[in-house]
Amino acid sequence: MPAPLRLGLAGLGTVGVGVVQIVQRHADLIAARAGRPVVITAVSARDRSKNRDADLSGYAWETDPVALARRDDVDVFIEVMGGHDGPAKASTEAALAAGKDVVTANKALLAHHGHALALAAESAGRVIRFEAAVAGGIPVIKALTEGLAANRIKRVMGVMNGTCNYILTRMQNAGLPYETVFEEARQLGYLEADPNLDVGGIDAGHKLSLLSAIAFGTQVSFDHVELEGIGNVSIDDINHAAEMGYRIKLLGVAQETGRGLEQRMTPCLVPADSPLGQLQGGTNMVVLEGDAVGQIVLRGAGAGSGPTASAVMADVLDIARGIRLPVFGQPAATLRAPVPAKSATPAPYYLRMALLDKPGALAKIATCLGEAGISIDQMRQINQPGEADDNAVVIFVTHKAAPADIAHAQSQFPATGVLVGQAVAIRIEAV
Amino acid sequence: MPAPLRLGLAGLGTVGVGVVQIVQRHADLIAARAGRPVVITAVSARDRSKNRDADLSGYAWETDPVALARRDDVDVFIEVMGGHDGPAKASTEAALAAGKDVVTANKALLAHHGHALALAAESAGRVIRFEAAVAGGIPVIKALTEGLAANRIKRVMGVMNGTCNYILTRMQNAGLPYETVFEEARQLGYLEADPNLDVGGIDAGHKLSLLSAIAFGTQVSFDHVELEGIGNVSIDDINHAAEMGYRIKLLGVAQETGRGLEQRMTPCLVPADSPLGQLQGGTNMVVLEGDAVGQIVLRGAGAGSGPTASAVMADVLDIARGIRLPVFGQPAATLRAPVPAKSATPAPYYLRMALLDKPGALAKIATCLGEAGISIDQMRQINQPGEADDNAVVIFVTHKAAPADIAHAQSQFPATGVLVGQAVAIRIEAV
Repeated sequence: MPAPLRLGLAGLGTVGVGVVQIVQRHADLIAARAGRPVVITAVSARDRSKNRDADLSGYAWETDPVALARRDDVDVFIEVMGGHDGPAKASTEAALAAGKDVVTANKALLAHHGHALALAAESAGRVIRFEAAVAGGIPVIKALTEGLAANRIKRVMGVMNGTCNYILTRMQNAGLPYETVFEEARQLGYLEADPNLDVGGIDAGHKLSLLSAIAFGTQVSFDHVELEGIGNVSIDDINHAAEMGYRIKLLGVAQETGRGLEQRMTPCLVPADSPLGQLQGGTNMVVLEGDAVGQIVLRGAGAGSGPTASAVMADVLDIARGIRLPVFGQPAATLRAPVPAKSATPAPYYLRMALLDKPGALAKIATCLGEAGISIDQMRQINQPGEADDNAVVIFVTHKAAPADIAHAQSQFPATGVLVGQAVAIRIEAV
Repeated sequence: MPAPLRLGLAGLGTVGVGVVQIVQRHADLIAARAGRPVVITAVSARDRSKNRDADLSGYAWETDPVALARRDDVDVFIEVMGGHDGPAKASTEAALAAGKDVVTANKALLAHHGHALALAAESAGRVIRFEAAVAGGIPVIKALTEGLAANRIKRVMGVMNGTCNYILTRMQNAGLPYETVFEEARQLGYLEADPNLDVGGIDAGHKLSLLSAIAFGTQVSFDHVELEGIGNVSIDDINHAAEMGYRIKLLGVAQETGRGLEQRMTPCLVPADSPLGQLQGGTNMVVLEGDAVGQIVLRGAGAGSGPTASAVMADVLDIARGIRLPVFGQPAATLRAPVPAKSATPAPYYLRMALLDKPGALAKIATCLGEAGISIDQMRQINQPGEADDNAVVIFVTHKAAPADIAHAQSQFPATGVLVGQAVAIRIEAV
């Protein structure tokens, strides 16, 4: 049997320990499938004394991940520390410079530096693999890069932050407001140290930007992802949407248009009976649409020790089996600079607003919509317990409208003198 | 740029024409992703004069697919003719013997001869790829062989025959009996020339046997798949199941047990709100369960020109990119001979029977169940319009019971003297 493939593992948190457990538990199975043994030779973490659920006694210890990345007895550097700069970036660069392949779960690192790292890897003849960086255990990078390689990709969508989907489905199922469920999630340990990474849509936006690069052959451009988190999603909107047959999801959508690449990670309404609408709790789902294959839906655990380590080790097995592809599916030097396009694809919109309950109020709003070229598909007035007596809550569902037209109409509402507070507008994505 | 990869295409039906269309339409995109051009050099089909929706003028024509397989200007032999013996088998063997890689959509061929062909391919240093043979456009072979390679696979499940799922969901949605919908499906062209390949579960059983081989490292053993088609699924059972929150699906299940490998393709009840239960029409779904990753669900078109050709071309791109794996994920010589196990995994069962409507009838049946060690979770008596007045239709849902115990109880029912006709028993699969 050929020589073992030797791993250097930087990061011994949940994911790193999961990797150790798989390597130890499935040594025989992995060797049979890879055609060679796969072993860990050295590890690195900040705190050596911490008690971990894994036997590390057989591995060399490095305090500095950069030193780990350069070790002669390491063929593949596994980076599961996290952080988009600092040690993660330094050690990844060091590994490539030292001629190692890299496997990473670090979506932030690649969203910010993916193109530069891919150029560095390819000029060094090395690979960077990142299945674990997007949608945890779901083999979506592989499905997109390889399984759908003969398709022109038309659209990529996904619910890719389990914490946000947990919060939104828990709000709906328990009828609780955002703040309450956010606090629950914090106490359950579901939130990142900086919760805005989750609820601000940043983490999910990182993932979307990586899928976009592969799907559309463009350089990663996280800076151009339109981001809107879930902090403003109200239980009222969740309930009104449900009554009309919709669910609210933090949905990522990327698509090439004639004007450029649209990427957005925003709350959207989706049909309640669609696969995305049915997704409950912390589960992730990615939808890939190709011109030949049609729509492929992938569903699974988006986080957690086992699922994420499964994805890390899938990349390791690919390397052990000699599978070597460009980082984003085609040589980085051939990736186009993205032409970012502000979202302009028309869609129906859900609009909610409170109006002064007086004659002609509705007509004034309808006039604003009409003047913006927006036609109305459904309208309903809600008798909202607790609203001031002289206010009426009104919901519109529009026909397809351009985002700019919706924004224009919204900008005109205050001048009517009948709007109370702010109007809420949420896109309805066809899925 | 390296030399083109040259394809010889045997079969110009729906799938073959789809392959031609992708190769022609996406030449640039494929070359960018594969790092080399991919071209068709020669084709073969039974009838040269047939009008086809593709421009074949640039390709050499071979009447005999075996001759095509041996051509010097062919690197990869694509077999999309179908049939588990005859020209498909002869030309595949000829291609391997002539040092060509093979891409096939032929589940029947591999279900019957997969192990021998894999041994032949691997001793010749060639690959056989068959993404298109299972679940059409869904990249499930890749997900299982590569994406979940670091997992011990616990169970594989799937709805993998779109025609059967169309018939079952159409029966439910329209309230129509099997015979009527079967005839509809025939007129719509959804059925194979031999409809028993579809409704008898054979086609889906072929697919399951291929997934089993990869998942459990065993030689393909289609002969050991327990097969039961959908011909006996009645609209009454579909309706009763729906009232209790279930759907009836032709469901494939493969799992390793202590006693051996269980493989079955049979009608099952699944929860209506599960991904499998929600699957409508001709769409396919495969569920993969790994010890690290948990449950991964894949959904997409299981047939049709574009989706199937997408899968064929994914395999071609893998070959063009230098990805070469053993046919079933580990060397064929290391695959274990399967120890087939008749299904013995306990599950709840749905039982429906008509009883003479007289005192003590139910007690006699309940006694049979009790003596077989089966306990009852739910019981309901149905007032069935049109039943003879002295019969009562009774539905039981049992607690988990071994299949053998269910069969034993069924064998004892007639001796009670209260059973009218036959009792129906359908497994309820936890999904």
